[in-house]
Amino acid sequence: MSQVALYHYWRSSCSWRVRWGFQIKKVAYEDRVINLVAGDQNSLAYKTKYPNGYIPAIELDGKHFGESLAILEWLEEKYPMPALLPQNSTDRLFVRQLASAIVSGIQPLQNLAVLKYWSADPAKQTQFAAHWIQTGLEKFEKLLQQGNPGTFCFGSSPTFADLCLVPQAYNAKRYGLNIDQFPMIKRIMEHCLTLPECDKSAPHNQPGAQPT
Amino acid sequence: MSQVALYHYWRSSCSWRVRWGFQIKKVAYEDRVINLVAGDQNSLAYKTKYPNGYIPAIELDGKHFGESLAILEWLEEKYPMPALLPQNSTDRLFVRQLASAIVSGIQPLQNLAVLKYWSADPAKQTQFAAHWIQTGLEKFEKLLQQGNPGTFCFGSSPTFADLCLVPQAYNAKRYGLNIDQFPMIKRIMEHCLTLPECDKSAPHNQPGAQPT
Repeated sequence: MSQVALYHYWRSSCSWRVRWGFQIKKVAYEDRVINLVAGDQNSLAYKTKYPNGYIPAIELDGKHFGESLAILEWLEEKYPMPALLPQNSTDRLFVRQLASAIVSGIQPLQNLAVLKYWSADPAKQTQFAAHWIQTGLEKFEKLLQQGNPGTFCFGSSPTFADLCLVPQAYNAKRYGLNIDQFPMIKRIMEHCLTLPECDKSAPHNQPGAQPT
Repeated sequence: MSQVALYHYWRSSCSWRVRWGFQIKKVAYEDRVINLVAGDQNSLAYKTKYPNGYIPAIELDGKHFGESLAILEWLEEKYPMPALLPQNSTDRLFVRQLASAIVSGIQPLQNLAVLKYWSADPAKQTQFAAHWIQTGLEKFEKLLQQGNPGTFCFGSSPTFADLCLVPQAYNAKRYGLNIDQFPMIKRIMEHCLTLPECDKSAPHNQPGAQPT
């Protein structure tokens, strides 16, 4: 198999999930920057490859595939170690539930296209995103309580749940939310941000990153 | 393991995905009806069990887990046959991508809570939902073209992709969309609706179903 190419953008929280997964699995990829602010995702060149027009997407042997959780599942099956899902089936369900609560429950409501449809006013866009991130993270904090979280969402190493949570919680700050109100999320995020694989995949270490 | 209980509602497209999966795997479940119109999902009784307050959710040995794709992944691992994912890793990625394009890309934007936040006016709610279903299904039709769809989204038997597509396309009609504009989606939906497992899991065959 030829090297994987990853279409991503430094600030995209969905891209960060996948970059972090590649870092943990020690799988190299070629950078293909899609500048969301410049509208690269809507270009014909990109949409011909990946009609959904979202990032991240990967290129495998000339074919293109998107959706961050689908890519993470592929990565986990193709490169099983270090594992990003627990062994036990009920624990896997718990972790996948947490990941989906971010991927389906929060992120789609702070997606750039949705914010633009909501309002042309940046202040109203921020208010809309902040509302759904706030309610989503409140629920996530309660979901975490049903497990036994430590410095990760589950167990003693990062899983899909952390890979989705940390970029989302990090993004929450952009929308003015105070993460201190979610003690477990805060502890997990602060710990994960100290890990080299997380840091390497973080926005500030990506091509094209701007000072924030 | 004791019998699984499924919290669901007849009209919920996310519930249908999971019900269809249980039917295909021939796994029995106890019905626990959550009446979305009556607001059961927001009751303390339900939120204590499953803090996200969404359906579907399953109860396994006294614990509760939500998120339809997480439940389908659990079902697939626990009861591998008949398989709801292809064998080949790239094909699995393709199918999971299609499923996520519905689960994360369309459904969250026609969720009842989101529609109510958008507007109190039912006509505006319908317009908002219809917009995202229309753009989402346009993209989905193009994603399908990247594979080799026949009477299913992939291969010769239903996968996660069909389990997510059919309830979404069925729902599209409620919002006034004409499915004829998506020939592949239409063909897949019409075929799937003739299958006994799909029919048994469809809205009209659920407890509490109302004439539509």
